[in-house]
Amino acid sequence: MKIRIGIVGYGNLGRGTECAVSAAEDMELVAIFTRRDPAGIQSASGAPVYQIEKAFEMKDQIDVMVLCGGSAKDLPEQTPMMAEHFNVIDSFDTHAKIPEHFEAVDAACRKSGKVAVISVGWDPGMFSLNRLYGQAILPQGKDYTFWGKGVSQGHSDAIRRIEGVQDARQYTIPVGEALEQVRKGENPELTTREKHTRECFVVAKEGADLKAIEQAIVTMPNYFADYDTTVHFISQEELDRDHKGIPHGGKVFRTGKTGWDGENTHIIEYSLKLDSNPEFTSSVLTAYARAAYRLNQKGEQGCKTVFDIAPAMLHPADPAELRKNLL
Amino acid sequence: MKIRIGIVGYGNLGRGTECAVSAAEDMELVAIFTRRDPAGIQSASGAPVYQIEKAFEMKDQIDVMVLCGGSAKDLPEQTPMMAEHFNVIDSFDTHAKIPEHFEAVDAACRKSGKVAVISVGWDPGMFSLNRLYGQAILPQGKDYTFWGKGVSQGHSDAIRRIEGVQDARQYTIPVGEALEQVRKGENPELTTREKHTRECFVVAKEGADLKAIEQAIVTMPNYFADYDTTVHFISQEELDRDHKGIPHGGKVFRTGKTGWDGENTHIIEYSLKLDSNPEFTSSVLTAYARAAYRLNQKGEQGCKTVFDIAPAMLHPADPAELRKNLL
Repeated sequence: MKIRIGIVGYGNLGRGTECAVSAAEDMELVAIFTRRDPAGIQSASGAPVYQIEKAFEMKDQIDVMVLCGGSAKDLPEQTPMMAEHFNVIDSFDTHAKIPEHFEAVDAACRKSGKVAVISVGWDPGMFSLNRLYGQAILPQGKDYTFWGKGVSQGHSDAIRRIEGVQDARQYTIPVGEALEQVRKGENPELTTREKHTRECFVVAKEGADLKAIEQAIVTMPNYFADYDTTVHFISQEELDRDHKGIPHGGKVFRTGKTGWDGENTHIIEYSLKLDSNPEFTSSVLTAYARAAYRLNQKGEQGCKTVFDIAPAMLHPADPAELRKNLL
Repeated sequence: MKIRIGIVGYGNLGRGTECAVSAAEDMELVAIFTRRDPAGIQSASGAPVYQIEKAFEMKDQIDVMVLCGGSAKDLPEQTPMMAEHFNVIDSFDTHAKIPEHFEAVDAACRKSGKVAVISVGWDPGMFSLNRLYGQAILPQGKDYTFWGKGVSQGHSDAIRRIEGVQDARQYTIPVGEALEQVRKGENPELTTREKHTRECFVVAKEGADLKAIEQAIVTMPNYFADYDTTVHFISQEELDRDHKGIPHGGKVFRTGKTGWDGENTHIIEYSLKLDSNPEFTSSVLTAYARAAYRLNQKGEQGCKTVFDIAPAMLHPADPAELRKNLL
């Protein structure tokens, strides 16, 4: 019997999840739910597309609902709402608001007896796991997280909101020198500016003031002011041709000391290089959907994060097989 | 109330565990147990050293016993024996015999109601975890494990057993070209010889036949015959001066594809660079000792591996703090 999956939201993440679920031998995709008019949407897999309200009539047909909406507006509302009826997974990534989101979702799960796993993906997600494992193993040490080279949707959107900008793509790039210092175990203290640079490819509207756009970008608080930022003006054709992908990635380091005098240094490095940020994220979501289903089958309930899930829960093979082949 | 730890075996791993436990704020080291005559042993921390039989009189004083013996002879006997009385951790690393060791330890735990975690360290251990996470997230893909550059005790011992050899140290070295192919996502099929080389530093006894020693090394089945092996003859002084450390490390890769046509490639790389193999291994053992204690407190019992332990169990901070600070 396969794990029956529903997807809520049919943007990049929903499409990635559709593909990942279709590839998983122990899962079947039951339906995709959207807030748009489903009549206009043809799914890539052929799975039916319904309006989101229809989900509540399908409680007995779906084991886990994978929520693929955005963290700003969709998930704070959708995850608790869906957790009242389904096991759910989301990729809520507003780090500062995770505790309150956790509480809201946990309360919903307690009513339904279902399992939710929130903030699943790579950061939060796999990167968080590596920060935790690193600290637990090397308590005397330092963490470093670097992002990129990759496209930041949030920063690209911020540029697009500037007057005179028609389109934009922003890359976050780790500073090579900082990476090397960390990799050598030098434990540097790094400022925001020393860790990452930002590179922007901008399509200006006809007649726009390029100097003013550039100035507005590099001085933008929170987004760009604390970084060394480069701005390139290019044509829409160039943007579409050369910057269409959404690659990303990054590295988590833990560098720590052991020995009575801290005489031995150890360096743990976890690195991701991703051609498609949303497809990788949805691959992680899909693995955790398997875990949510299994945990609920075992009688567990409540909101969880990647920290609370035993790794074996994610893998289709049974525990004896995992011990034999992977340990 | 601190977690009360006992250590069985006082070689490199036992000494590393002593240091790691002493550094952990939530743990205290109660005693070290040995099969040697304890009268001749002064522990680095000042913890008492007892003969191993004394452990069974101290059941109420020790929460977790960390077993630091060898996998060939000590652990197959000691882990089940100790698991009949204590929560235990071991670093059993004979991959092929893990299933039978698991069964023996699990049976002992079922009698005592205690928790055991076996095969803890970095391989098996952290590398195994990364193989599992990688496969679960990217089911269409390939794993690669590289070891080194680092000292292999087993290979060094094998050289020392050759006639005419006084001392030896063997380094396992990953082949740079193979690493680069994997890192680029080329998914190469690699033979044993293409993945690692072996470099040996050998001290010959006076008058020994160097050609014969070299020949005996490079043709030794299982250990060297399938590798490109270099042999250097050096003096005991040089060996003691330049090859005293026991560094190790390595890398686990998962390279996988996503997308309807497998058009996107993702590369996960987990890398360890360790100044001291035994001190890092014992740091992992210490973190899992915390988990074993907590799980047993929660009423769990039986034999487990790193695959079965939720990451949050390893970290001293409570779950809400972890969500706030590390997710």
